Amino acid sequence: MENLQERLNSIQPLNEDYMKRAKLRLDSLTKPVESLGRLEIIAQQYAAVREDLNPSIRRKMIVTFAGDHGVVEEGVSAYPREVTVQMVLNMLAGGAAVNVLARHVNAEVVIVDIGVDHDFEPAEGFIIKKVGYGTKNFTKGPAMTRAEALQSIEVGMELADKYAERGVNIIGTGEMGIGNTTPSSAILSVFTGLKAEKVTGRGTGIDDEGLQRKASIIEKAISVNRPDPEDPVDVLAKVGGFEIGGIAGLIIGCASRRIPVVVDGFISTAGALIAVAMNPAINEYLFCSHLSSEAGHKQMLETLGQEPILDLNMRLGEGTGAAIAMSVIEAAVKVMTEMATFESAGVDGKSK
Amino acid sequence: MENLQERLNSIQPLNEDYMKRAKLRLDSLTKPVESLGRLEIIAQQYAAVREDLNPSIRRKMIVTFAGDHGVVEEGVSAYPREVTVQMVLNMLAGGAAVNVLARHVNAEVVIVDIGVDHDFEPAEGFIIKKVGYGTKNFTKGPAMTRAEALQSIEVGMELADKYAERGVNIIGTGEMGIGNTTPSSAILSVFTGLKAEKVTGRGTGIDDEGLQRKASIIEKAISVNRPDPEDPVDVLAKVGGFEIGGIAGLIIGCASRRIPVVVDGFISTAGALIAVAMNPAINEYLFCSHLSSEAGHKQMLETLGQEPILDLNMRLGEGTGAAIAMSVIEAAVKVMTEMATFESAGVDGKSK
Repeated sequence: MENLQERLNSIQPLNEDYMKRAKLRLDSLTKPVESLGRLEIIAQQYAAVREDLNPSIRRKMIVTFAGDHGVVEEGVSAYPREVTVQMVLNMLAGGAAVNVLARHVNAEVVIVDIGVDHDFEPAEGFIIKKVGYGTKNFTKGPAMTRAEALQSIEVGMELADKYAERGVNIIGTGEMGIGNTTPSSAILSVFTGLKAEKVTGRGTGIDDEGLQRKASIIEKAISVNRPDPEDPVDVLAKVGGFEIGGIAGLIIGCASRRIPVVVDGFISTAGALIAVAMNPAINEYLFCSHLSSEAGHKQMLETLGQEPILDLNMRLGEGTGAAIAMSVIEAAVKVMTEMATFESAGVDGKSK
Repeated sequence: MENLQERLNSIQPLNEDYMKRAKLRLDSLTKPVESLGRLEIIAQQYAAVREDLNPSIRRKMIVTFAGDHGVVEEGVSAYPREVTVQMVLNMLAGGAAVNVLARHVNAEVVIVDIGVDHDFEPAEGFIIKKVGYGTKNFTKGPAMTRAEALQSIEVGMELADKYAERGVNIIGTGEMGIGNTTPSSAILSVFTGLKAEKVTGRGTGIDDEGLQRKASIIEKAISVNRPDPEDPVDVLAKVGGFEIGGIAGLIIGCASRRIPVVVDGFISTAGALIAVAMNPAINEYLFCSHLSSEAGHKQMLETLGQEPILDLNMRLGEGTGAAIAMSVIEAAVKVMTEMATFESAGVDGKSK
C-alpha cells in the first residue's frame, strides 16, 4: 500500500511545454498546419508523456491479464468458464486474435495468469502471478479481499517496472476472462451512479433474457457489497476482478515510468477507471484505442473524457483494439520525427 | 475509349458466395461471432474482391498522382502553385507525410506526374505520364479536352495493369496538386446537384473570404461549362483535373484486375465518384480509408454509400489516409487467415 501511494504521488500532469514544443515541430513539417488532425495530437501527447521531442518507438508490448470470475455461476456469460483456460492456451500457442494483430504491428504479447482457476505449466511469453483461483461470486459478498485487490494492482505495477527497464516504449492492455464484462459494468455503475441496466451489454453474446439477468445480478452485487466510489480499491475488491486490478496496476506503473499506455476496450477501460480514480493525472498518460460495441463503453470513455482513436465496432478484448491503435500511434510519432520541414525540403509556405 | 468501355463492361458485382464462405471461416475462429466487427466485414470484402478465401497481402502500393490546376489563378488555394512541384520533389526525396506513413505500413509509393506544370528529371519511384502542363482555368471554359480526360483515365488503367502483373495485392490512391479541392468540390456539386457553398471546404487552409470566393468560382465554373452528370467523362473534362482522372482510371483498372483499392480522402473520392458513375459495381471494390475533415467529404461518402474505416480528422491527401487504412485492411485479412479455429485450438463454443 505504501508502494502504491508513493507511485500515485509520483505521477504529475503532463508538462505542457513538451506539447507546445512538439506542436512547433509539427507546424514546421511539409503539410498544412494541423492537416494530419488526430495524428498530430497523438504525437504531441506521446512526446509529452516521454518528455522527449524526438521519440522513437522501438519496443512495443501488449500485456494480457487472465482471470476467472465467481459470478459466472450466475449464468452471466454466453461461454462456459473453462474457456478462460482454453483461450489462455490458445494465446500461448499464438492462435488468438491478439496474437495475430500484435504480430501484424510488431508488438510482443505477454499473457499473465493473475487469477485463472487452473494450474498452468510455465511457457514462453507467460507470467504466472496468481492472486487467486478466480474471484468469488460477488452477488454473495466481495469478489476478493482488499489485500487481494492491492496485490493484483501490485502485479501490474511490477510488470510496468520490468518492461520499463527493458526499454519498452509503449504498452497496450488486454485481458481474457469469461464473465469479465460483468464486473466491468459494475465498476462503471458504481463510479457513475448509473443503473446497471444502462451500462450492461451482451459481452460475448448473451440473449435478451440473459442481458436482463446480468443487469439484475449487477444491481444485486452492488446492493449486497455497497462499494464506496470514493475508494477505488474498495470498488475493485467488491465488484472487480483480478485482471481488472492487474490492468489498473499496469496503468499506474506505466504512468509512473512515463510509458504511454494504450487502453484496449471495455474491461481495460474499467481498469483505467480504477487507476484514474486514484489519481486523475493518470488520464493524460492514456491513449484509448477504440470504441467498443459493448454497451457502456461509450459511457466509460465519456466518464474519462477520452476520445477513442478507432471505431471499428469491435468487442473482443484481449488487447486487439490496443494492437491496432498502437500502430496508429507509432505512425503519428514517425510523422513528427521523420517528415521533412518546409525549410529542409525547400517548400514554400502559405501565400501572403 | 474502346478500351475503357471494355474494361467497364468486365467489372461485375462481387460474387456473394465468397462473402458467405469468408463469413463461415470467420465464424469458425476462436472469438465470439462478429466480435471483430468491421475487421470481419473488411476481410469478407477483400476475399470477395480477390475471389480467394485464403488471401495474403504480400505487396502494397500507393499511387500518388500529381497535377496542376489553371483555376489556381483565381486565388482558390492558400498555397502558391509552385508548391505542387516542390512537394513532388519532397515526395521523391522521401520527406512527405505519405512517404513516412507508407514506410510505416510497408507499402511502396509511386509518384505519377500526370499533369504538373514543370519538366521533371526522371527518378526512382517516379513515373512521368504527362497529359498536360496543368489544366486550364475552368471558369473560362473546360479544364481539359474530352480526349485529355480519356487519356488521364488511360494512364491510371495502365498503371493498374502494370502493378497487377507485378503481384501487387492492394493499391491505395493519392494525389498532390495545389488547387485540387476546387475541382473535387465541383465534381461533387455536379453529381449531387448540391450548391457549391454546401460542398466547398477550406482545402489547405483558406480563410472565410477565400472560402466564399472559392464557392462562387465553382458555381461559375459549373454555369460556364454545364457538365452533364450523366456523362462522367464530360464532368471530368469540364471541371476535373488530370490527377482526378488518373485516380478514376486507376480505380477502374484495379477493379477490372480484382485489386482492392483503398481510396484516400476528398480528392481521391472525387475520382471514385467519376469511376463509380461509369459502373456502379466498381463501388464494391473500394475501401474508403477515412473521413476527411474537408467539408464535403462526408457528403461524397454518403453519395457512394461508403462507410470510412478511420476518422482521424485528417485532410492532407497524398495517400496518407490510404496508407494507415491499408494496414487495418491487412490486419483484417490476417485475422481471417492466421487465427486458430475453435476446433484446431480445442476451445469450447457458446453454452447451449
